[in-house]
Amino acid sequence: MAYNLLKGKTGIIFGALNNQSIAWKVAERAYEEGARFVLTNTPIALRFGELNELAERTGSIVIPADATSVKDLEMLISKSMEYFGGKIDFILHSIGMSLNVRKGRNYDDVDYDYLVKTYDISALSFHKLLQTAKKMDAINEWGSVVALSYIAAQRTLFRYNDMADAKAALESIARSFGYIYGREKRVRINTISQSPTLTTAGSGVKGIDDLLDYSERMSPLGNASADECADYCVTLFSDLTRKVTMQNLYHDGGFSSMGMSERAMHTYSRSLNCDECRDQE
Amino acid sequence: MAYNLLKGKTGIIFGALNNQSIAWKVAERAYEEGARFVLTNTPIALRFGELNELAERTGSIVIPADATSVKDLEMLISKSMEYFGGKIDFILHSIGMSLNVRKGRNYDDVDYDYLVKTYDISALSFHKLLQTAKKMDAINEWGSVVALSYIAAQRTLFRYNDMADAKAALESIARSFGYIYGREKRVRINTISQSPTLTTAGSGVKGIDDLLDYSERMSPLGNASADECADYCVTLFSDLTRKVTMQNLYHDGGFSSMGMSERAMHTYSRSLNCDECRDQE
Amino acid sequence: MAYNLLKGKTGIIFGALNNQSIAWKVAERAYEEGARFVLTNTPIALRFGELNELAERTGSIVIPADATSVKDLEMLISKSMEYFGGKIDFILHSIGMSLNVRKGRNYDDVDYDYLVKTYDISALSFHKLLQTAKKMDAINEWGSVVALSYIAAQRTLFRYNDMADAKAALESIARSFGYIYGREKRVRINTISQSPTLTTAGSGVKGIDDLLDYSERMSPLGNASADECADYCVTLFSDLTRKVTMQNLYHDGGFSSMGMSERAMHTYSRSLNCDECRDQE
Amino acid sequence: MAYNLLKGKTGIIFGALNNQSIAWKVAERAYEEGARFVLTNTPIALRFGELNELAERTGSIVIPADATSVKDLEMLISKSMEYFGGKIDFILHSIGMSLNVRKGRNYDDVDYDYLVKTYDISALSFHKLLQTAKKMDAINEWGSVVALSYIAAQRTLFRYNDMADAKAALESIARSFGYIYGREKRVRINTISQSPTLTTAGSGVKGIDDLLDYSERMSPLGNASADECADYCVTLFSDLTRKVTMQNLYHDGGFSSMGMSERAMHTYSRSLNCDECRDQE
Repeated sequence: MAYNLLKGKTGIIFGALNNQSIAWKVAERAYEEGARFVLTNTPIALRFGELNELAERTGSIVIPADATSVKDLEMLISKSMEYFGGKIDFILHSIGMSLNVRKGRNYDDVDYDYLVKTYDISALSFHKLLQTAKKMDAINEWGSVVALSYIAAQRTLFRYNDMADAKAALESIARSFGYIYGREKRVRINTISQSPTLTTAGSGVKGIDDLLDYSERMSPLGNASADECADYCVTLFSDLTRKVTMQNLYHDGGFSSMGMSERAMHTYSRSLNCDECRDQE
Repeated sequence: MAYNLLKGKTGIIFGALNNQSIAWKVAERAYEEGARFVLTNTPIALRFGELNELAERTGSIVIPADATSVKDLEMLISKSMEYFGGKIDFILHSIGMSLNVRKGRNYDDVDYDYLVKTYDISALSFHKLLQTAKKMDAINEWGSVVALSYIAAQRTLFRYNDMADAKAALESIARSFGYIYGREKRVRINTISQSPTLTTAGSGVKGIDDLLDYSERMSPLGNASADECADYCVTLFSDLTRKVTMQNLYHDGGFSSMGMSERAMHTYSRSLNCDECRDQE
Repeated sequence: MAYNLLKGKTGIIFGALNNQSIAWKVAERAYEEGARFVLTNTPIALRFGELNELAERTGSIVIPADATSVKDLEMLISKSMEYFGGKIDFILHSIGMSLNVRKGRNYDDVDYDYLVKTYDISALSFHKLLQTAKKMDAINEWGSVVALSYIAAQRTLFRYNDMADAKAALESIARSFGYIYGREKRVRINTISQSPTLTTAGSGVKGIDDLLDYSERMSPLGNASADECADYCVTLFSDLTRKVTMQNLYHDGGFSSMGMSERAMHTYSRSLNCDECRDQE
Repeated sequence: MAYNLLKGKTGIIFGALNNQSIAWKVAERAYEEGARFVLTNTPIALRFGELNELAERTGSIVIPADATSVKDLEMLISKSMEYFGGKIDFILHSIGMSLNVRKGRNYDDVDYDYLVKTYDISALSFHKLLQTAKKMDAINEWGSVVALSYIAAQRTLFRYNDMADAKAALESIARSFGYIYGREKRVRINTISQSPTLTTAGSGVKGIDDLLDYSERMSPLGNASADECADYCVTLFSDLTRKVTMQNLYHDGGFSSMGMSERAMHTYSRSLNCDECRDQE
């Protein structure tokens, strides 16, 4: 169902890779809600060409850009404003990557060059985007910027590694820049802390299936899907949430407010009370 | 602007008193968005009859009920379901009152009968409402319940008195019941932590003007108004926020994430550096 | 090992029942650290007489008092000040009880008379204690008051029931009164959010063993014991933590900052991958 | 007053510059409590030689090391273990610096080379320290590591700039590494979120005096001093807090739990109601 919530609005969407991506779903929903937008990702991510299909279908264009490069961001924003013939109303930042995770380096054995890259890609890129946009005065009053985060920023999950610290920095950047951009240009900046989601990025994490099961059973409403996240993004880009800023908003079926659910405990307890399980220990 | 976000949805709105009330604004916006609803308040609050005007204008009915009485709540819900010919989709709980505040009793000299009343009216009424609704199976799957709260639940504000503790209990009830109602019926329950708002209730608080000024200058986007709160409620009642539950959501122009703004500090500093001010000390 | 951290200090310790109680351990440690104190509990809790043994061993006295009765609290404080020949330096509030839990009433089917009792015993008693103490000017400057809490105040644990909301109110009272008592008398007030502990009270909760196992495996340092909690209380009663106030302090081996540990996930996963377990579902 | 709380314990203290430094006070208190330790700072910070005086007085040695250099950290830890003839029991990390702050670059006009340095010095140095220590198995079981932080990690303070994001990352590193180091070696890792303190570092911040005044009047117990912070550190290094880990602990006289105090509001209100002040606007 569509409501015209974003009618007449323009945006930039970072991070769509394929139809598993949250950013992809956001693009589809934003299109349904009447928005026009630019899709962007790194040149490497674009080489498979899937994004062109999405662009075509949603009447948008693709502009390759490396979000860690201020020069690329300037070019992207400049071209986007040209394309729209004016300023931008919303931005989605769905970017994150850790070479330490990919290369299987544990958190107590990280490579510091990788670590700096994790920060640069997953957190600093958000600052660069905001600073560049503000310098170019690229966002309309009451514009809305959303970055995707994860609860690992507050609570440690094994194997999430240096991404946890990067997400903590990302959420802090949302607050710090939200203050500046809010007071000067009425632009609001928030992060969504989304359920673990089986995107291409997420599926790289070892043991992700069991974690999804745990998260599903802990969350009274179950894990939030990428489609549902797109719905939520639409409300945050709309004019109905103008005074929400500098927040980290949990979109997770209730997971973040759970200590222990009966369902998850049931599964856990079974393992404690089963001979076969104990034998495996 | 209306989007039909609540088309076909039915609800109950507690706490509208006059056109300053947040609940009043929510009713107006819900109506614009296509909802049908029942308005309710205590018999005493209804004696001025203003609510009838709102009911007429929004095609709704008024059912008097004391939210601290399970019997009244049963009657209210039963009549509402009859009126709608079915279950309810959303509920707004905008109820709070402290006799200790009203009678000028300080927090270290409270009357415990008053205190218990503060809890009963401002917090337990929410549990009673939810328990009654659940027992009567009155809320549709993916229904949404919102209660209004205030940041005093987390951070002490002088003179907010026993309302702070009641709001903390209210937010806890939202989590505790959100778990139960979520896992069994897919109903989501959240609180909105709203900027201080000059409602009839709020205007009773001494020194509220200066606090509003401070809050306005601290918040990068300024205080959130009752109208803006109504917009936000609409998104939470809509189908676009289905996986948001058990959350306390700050709708405050960024206040909750501020330590000190330049504008508020400027006002504060002036007082420190002014002879006339120092003379007053 | 003892350090004389509480040498010359006097206190009141609520809630010791038997040698499983945290309050019992606090009394033992406070004694070792040089404190003198009064032990108190309800007349009913005292009928087994175990507390007398502790009193004898620690050179303290037992004064029966119902912490929900202002009159009893006045008597207790008055007698304590007489006994010490002066004001008090520290208080431990380790009190909590829910008839809804005891009688097996679920959270969506609570008895409201029980609920009000839960609040009164587990939360309001803390306010009554503080208000009474302040009115009697019973606590020395830089005195320290600690109440025991649990993470259910922030995150829902199935079966913890209305105790969760009571603990949320308790922690709010610590903040609200901490502000007043701090600014006027330099008294600090905090809550300790302790690991689940197998006290007599705790052992009544169904399924507590499995929850303890889960909590143990989630916490990198394991669950905190009652003895360790007593150590921690000693630091909070000492002069070394004078500027810590209005805080909820997690003493839980890291549990509160965990999203998922490898050990807990391992146990959980076993259950998912075991035929015998699946058969049981 | 001394209690022998750290008798027989050995440590490394980063960040003492002169007798205004919190780290300097921690060294003095740790000495009084019976600890032996190594003092360290960058070669540049050491050129004034003040640290030698402290070392002499506390029977410790000074080892220059750049905390952003893994090589330097290895050398420091290796020499320290040699000096002690064994492993280390506690570490204080009191390190932070932002060239963007120093050079007056606003947060929406940061230099990214400076920003990366801010992260490296103020946050990553903590990870490097922990990873190096763990690889060298340098910390005893139940050892304790503390890093100093500030509330800007949670709430934006104008002019605190990129230090806010660095502190957020620092606190996240404490959690992430606290999990690993806790489960494997029983080492606990926490951050102390200290009141603003007039150290040499702090005094560089423009308008710090007025902020200190505000903070003082907001905090029911007033700002926490460097001396009081040292007392608190001693408790965290002691054996009495063994199950506290992965926490950010506010040591701030209650500031973090305040929304608005009567005293601060009084000062603020004066400015609103004073003709001379309004003329200045």
